[in-house]
Formats: sequence, structure tokens, C-alpha cells
Amino acid sequence: MTELTRADCVAFDQDDQLASLRERFALPDGIIYLDGNSLGVLPRATGARLENLIREEWGQSLITGWNKHGWVNLPLHLGARIARLIGADTDEVVVCDSTSLNVFKVLSAAIALRPERRIILSDSGNFPTDLYMAQGLAQLLGRDHRLEIVAPEEVSNRIRDDIAAVMLTEVDYRSGRRHDMAAISAKAKAAGALTIWDLAHSAGAMPVDLNGCGVDFAVGCGYKYLNGGPGAPAFLFVAKRWLDATQQPLYGWFGHMTPFAFETGYRPKTGIERFLVGTPPVLSLAALGCGLDTFDGVDMRQVREKSLALGDLMIRLVEQECPDFGLALASPSNGAGRGSQVSYAHPSGYAVMQALIAHGVIGDFRAPDLMRFGFTPLYVRYQDIWDAVAILRQVLTNEEWRNPAYSRRAAVT
Amino acid sequence: MTELTRADCVAFDQDDQLASLRERFALPDGIIYLDGNSLGVLPRATGARLENLIREEWGQSLITGWNKHGWVNLPLHLGARIARLIGADTDEVVVCDSTSLNVFKVLSAAIALRPERRIILSDSGNFPTDLYMAQGLAQLLGRDHRLEIVAPEEVSNRIRDDIAAVMLTEVDYRSGRRHDMAAISAKAKAAGALTIWDLAHSAGAMPVDLNGCGVDFAVGCGYKYLNGGPGAPAFLFVAKRWLDATQQPLYGWFGHMTPFAFETGYRPKTGIERFLVGTPPVLSLAALGCGLDTFDGVDMRQVREKSLALGDLMIRLVEQECPDFGLALASPSNGAGRGSQVSYAHPSGYAVMQALIAHGVIGDFRAPDLMRFGFTPLYVRYQDIWDAVAILRQVLTNEEWRNPAYSRRAAVT
Repeated sequence: MTELTRADCVAFDQDDQLASLRERFALPDGIIYLDGNSLGVLPRATGARLENLIREEWGQSLITGWNKHGWVNLPLHLGARIARLIGADTDEVVVCDSTSLNVFKVLSAAIALRPERRIILSDSGNFPTDLYMAQGLAQLLGRDHRLEIVAPEEVSNRIRDDIAAVMLTEVDYRSGRRHDMAAISAKAKAAGALTIWDLAHSAGAMPVDLNGCGVDFAVGCGYKYLNGGPGAPAFLFVAKRWLDATQQPLYGWFGHMTPFAFETGYRPKTGIERFLVGTPPVLSLAALGCGLDTFDGVDMRQVREKSLALGDLMIRLVEQECPDFGLALASPSNGAGRGSQVSYAHPSGYAVMQALIAHGVIGDFRAPDLMRFGFTPLYVRYQDIWDAVAILRQVLTNEEWRNPAYSRRAAVT
Repeated sequence: MTELTRADCVAFDQDDQLASLRERFALPDGIIYLDGNSLGVLPRATGARLENLIREEWGQSLITGWNKHGWVNLPLHLGARIARLIGADTDEVVVCDSTSLNVFKVLSAAIALRPERRIILSDSGNFPTDLYMAQGLAQLLGRDHRLEIVAPEEVSNRIRDDIAAVMLTEVDYRSGRRHDMAAISAKAKAAGALTIWDLAHSAGAMPVDLNGCGVDFAVGCGYKYLNGGPGAPAFLFVAKRWLDATQQPLYGWFGHMTPFAFETGYRPKTGIERFLVGTPPVLSLAALGCGLDTFDGVDMRQVREKSLALGDLMIRLVEQECPDFGLALASPSNGAGRGSQVSYAHPSGYAVMQALIAHGVIGDFRAPDLMRFGFTPLYVRYQDIWDAVAILRQVLTNEEWRNPAYSRRAAVT
């Protein structure tokens, strides 16, 4: 294969039809940000929107803002906008709470639909909080429900008629390996099991086709590819066929049929709003709205194409520039089997990543030894990949990662 | 009793030792805001704080902000600041999720501590979402747990050794009636029942003495008297004696002993952090921090004194100025039995309140017929009470509430 140069990468950027989207973001100077799969970059519009929300809407309208400025509709309104990104209808998605809590809600709903079954099937590549929520729910139910965790490649074989729900994250947060959502969902359906997909590393990174795949339930994260800000609210999806047939056990007043009648007995709202619980967090919701604005007019197929091209470029450049430093590709080399990230194992992965960060290349580390590089096609350039790999080569060549300062663990890594 | 004049009220303001606190808030012009018990006023510092958080911390530091700017510590840090306001130790309070969800957590923890008991006792004056959460939990458990709702004045008599948890809101959101937290908690303790107090209308409005009253669990709201903004995160309290003996079933990664080790099995953190679930909502938490700043150096006993003086003034002025319009005081006239609000029943209460709002006097309405006026001692003045009552008299004298525009219900009322 011909060696690539930085000029080639700059040329790729010049041909990139999505290149102008980068202007929608306030990227810091001197940083190559390959961690949008952990926390998305600040959209340029968010600061002014929040300032207006705080000073004008809250400050001037106070309690009347709930109606006057439509705060009360934000969970549904934002859900409808996410629907386009994930292959859902607009009345099947709502924004609320955290991904963890939304897992609890949809998993409870799924289990209640399969009262004769006791097993929640997941895999060891699922994000831990999803597994924890399932464990907590199973213990709470105390009716022999249990979470069964198999290897990712064993999931399909394990789907049989004893499984109540198959709960998976489409894209593995460590390796970037991507499950075949269509095939697994079809197999689950045939076995009478319900599907719960976590789209934390999918929504906003690639087209998702929940209804095309016959998915029953899904959840996802607002602060990664959707650019909603640190700890942004999450979303959840319930297929229309289940909307009025299911309930979730977190009976809060925003899920009540008539919250402002202040009845003492719970009656769930019709539709997706019964998955709401407490008072919506308006500031955080408004920021997520600005994150979703960055997708206005964006074709998710083009996003996926660029995402894969960026990943393929990273893999090719690491092979070309860093062949001899003990980096082991930990992601599928085949794009179709991969999300929007590429991970490398390295025995001193943590320290190498800290050295990269010190040089302005921000990826992240996942135990035990994975360096993770995420590609957000809306703002990452081909030349950024070149520059990141060049700095990686420098760090490895000079063994900069041996600096003791780089081996101290921080609270969030 | 001598008739009061507006000049008397202005004189009260001149003598008010808390008067200067009003400068900490950005109050809109031409508004008399008596709804801080529904949504607190914008603190003057919040806009700039959020702008800095968004543009500098998130925008420039991106993922590294979790450590660099201490985002990861906000739930504990803010909890410790709330502790002072509610008579708790700093390691007994954490800020997270919504009040509804926190009710679910502490109620689950309480029930698990009393495995042989099946009844959750509450009253008809509790805020509905608390009752709904208890109903949802009881149904989910499916082990004959049930919520028993009695009249507020019957609670104490009903506490016997079949009660697992007594779950009450200290101050009734409609009438402002205040439960005797010390007496009820003592009676519950003697009966072996655990206590859960909702401080939605107490925290920030009056001194609360959770540990002095021997309370086991508590929850509270960030967007009322704590001025955290619409839908601000809530808080929860667990008495130290239960911290490591209890668990809550919403097993999320932020409640895990080592969240960034990404273990597949849940192990709860020690202490109050095991009541955390998902990723903390940083923007909303920062805004709540500004709300708490408005209490810096404030003596809660002085707050209570002024709160009662404002309420007493309202009652006296309504008697003096509006004796003949069918207003029925729906709050205790005795301050010790009242929170920081005064409510009046009126057959056309909704329309009267809409007319008041149209004149810039913002209270709120609670079904079926209650007009609610909340007093936030940090920014409400004695002269505001005079002016509000004068406008109330005008609205009632002219029967302005008969205007059909005032009878249309909005989504949030």
C-alpha cells in the first residue's frame, strides 16, 4: 500500500462534504479531540442559548416559563428530534433522566411483558452500568430473575425461549466492536424474547434503524455523540406496539395522566410520556437541544461513511507510522463490524494516553490496557488523525510515557 | 387591632436584617413573586457561572473537566452544603436525580431494613409524586407491600408496629400545614418504623433538624427555596447509622465502589455515594451551586422568623383589606404549624390567580380551589405583601376574574 502523507489527509479534508459542520462547534485551540464518544465538544450555540434561557426565560418568566417557553414539552420535543437519528417514529422517543435509570425503566417494562421468563441476557462487552441496573432490578424483584452475561460472540447462540430480554449495547465501549442489531433482534423475536439496545455509542455516530430491525426498547446517551454537555439527559425508545401495553415502575408525577390534578393514585399517561418520572431538568435539556441542532440537515449515512474512513485512516496510519511499539489493534479492522472508534491495547496504555493528552491529543483509557480513540465525523478532520498518529509515534519513540507523572490515576480516566 | 398601612410595611423592610439578601437575586421588574415554593428566583450569579462552565470548563477542558474542575465531586460537594440547612452531617447528604427518584431509593432502602413489615404509611397531604413512587415500588416488589394513606391528623395515631416506613412531606404543598417532625419521628422510632421526610417545602425556608429529630431518611427539591433553576437536581439524606447498612436498588455506575474499573458486578460504594446512579448532570448541578450560594452566611433561624412574619402579615392584611370576597384561609393561622406559605380557598381560585398574575402578582393554584402564596425570606419584602394584597383586593372588587381569558387552564398551573 502506498504510504500516506499529511498532504493526502489535508486533501481528504478538502473533499469532505461534512467539513463545514466543524464550524458548528467551539473547539479549543491546539487540541486534537478524539474523545467525543466520552464527552462531545461544545456546540457554538450552546453558550448563548443557555444565557438566554437563564437570564430571560427563567429570570424574567419564572414559573410561567413552563408554559410560555415550552419547558414542559422539552422531553417529548427533544425525543422527537432524536427519533430521526435512530430510525424511530417521533412519538416513540423521550428524553429524561440518565441512561442507567432508563435501562431500569425499559428492562422493568420488558420483564413484565414476559412474566413466565426469568433470564436477562447480556454480554461482557456491555457497559457496566447497564449490567448493574439489571442486577439491581433482578435482586429487587426477588423472583429468581437473573442476569446472564456471556461473551459477545456467544449472544446469538444463547438466545432461546427462556430469555425474557436480550439487553446489549450496540457498540462495545472498549473495543468498538459492533453487534449485528438486525440479526440479533430477529433471533430474539423468533425466540419470543424482547430486545433492549443501548445506543450510547451509536446515536449520532451512525444511522440506527430501530424500527427496521424490529427493536422493542432502546436507551441512549445525550453527552457523547449528541453533544449535550457533561451529564446531559439520556433518552429512551419504546416501540409503538408496546407503548400502551407496558408500564415502568418508577411512577413519577410527570408520567401521570393528569399531573396537575394532584390525584393521590397513579394513572400512567398514554404513550411514551409514561416513561417520565420527575420534573424535567430544563437547563440540561436546553443544552441537549443545542447538541441536536448540530445534526440539522446532516445525512447520517454520510456521517457513517466519514466515521469509517476516519477509523480506517487511523488503523492504516498506525500501521505505517507506529509498527514497532507494541500497539495491538483491539477493534475490528473491518468497518462494518465497528462503531466510530478504534482502540489499541498497550501494556502501558494508561501512561501513553496521559502523555498523548499532555501533547493535546485527547483520547481516553479503559481498563485494563486500552487506549480509545473516538471519531466524531461532525468535527474531526482527516488531518487530525495524521497529527494524532504523529504525536503517538513521538510519545512511543521517546518513551515519554515512562515519565512518572503519567502513571498517576485521576478520579475519572 | 390597629389597621396597617403601606408605610408600616416599608418600615418593616427598613428594619429587616435580611433585606440586603435580595440583592443576590435578579428579580424581574414589576413583578411581585410569591411562588418561590414552586420555582425559586434566578440568583444574580448563575448566568455568569454557567457561562464560565460552558465556555471555559466544558468548552476548553472537555473530558478532562471531570477532574480538573471537580465536576465529579459536585454531588457530594453540594450535598455537604445542603447539610447545614437541614441539620445533617456533611457526609449524609448527596445531590442527584429528581425528588421522585430519590423517594424510590430511600423508600427501597427503608423497606429492606424492615423485611417483616409491609406497610408504608403516608398522608393525603403528601405531594402526589411521593405517593406514586411508593405505589410503583410496592407493585414492583409484589410481596404484599402497600401504601396506606391517612389524613394528616391521623398519622400519629396510625403509627404502630406493622409500619415499615412513615413517609411524609413536612410542609403540605397545598395548605402549608406543617407536621411535627420531632414528635412523629420519635413515635415512629418507638414503633420500630423508619422515617422518610420530604423537605421540598422546608429546605431553605426554615431550619430543619434531621439529626436532632432522629430522622432516618429524607429527600428534597433543588428548584424551590434552594433556587437551583427549573428542574434542578434533588437531594437525599441518609442518617449515618444506616449509610453502610442500607442499599438502594438502582445500581448505577456512579454508586459503584470503583466505577472506572468497569467491573461487570455491582459493588456499592461506602457511604452516601451508593445512592448515586448515573452520570451527574454537571450544568444543572453548577446552577444549583449558585442557588446554594444565596444562603452563604444566612442564619436559618432569622429566615424562619421573617418567613412567619411575612405569612402573618399576609393573613392580617387579607383580613383587613379583603374581608368580604369569599376568601377562606386554608393554612394554619398559627405560625408554628405552618411552613412558608399561606393559601386561600376561593370558588374561582384558578381565575383569580390568573388575574393576579396578569397584574404581576405571581402565586400559583392547586386544585381544587387553592390560591397559594409562598414567601421566600431571602427576596420577598413586607411591602410586596402589601402590594400583593392591594392588587388582590382590586381583582376581587372589580371581579376581574370573570374575564374568560383567566379560566383557560395551561399545561402547568
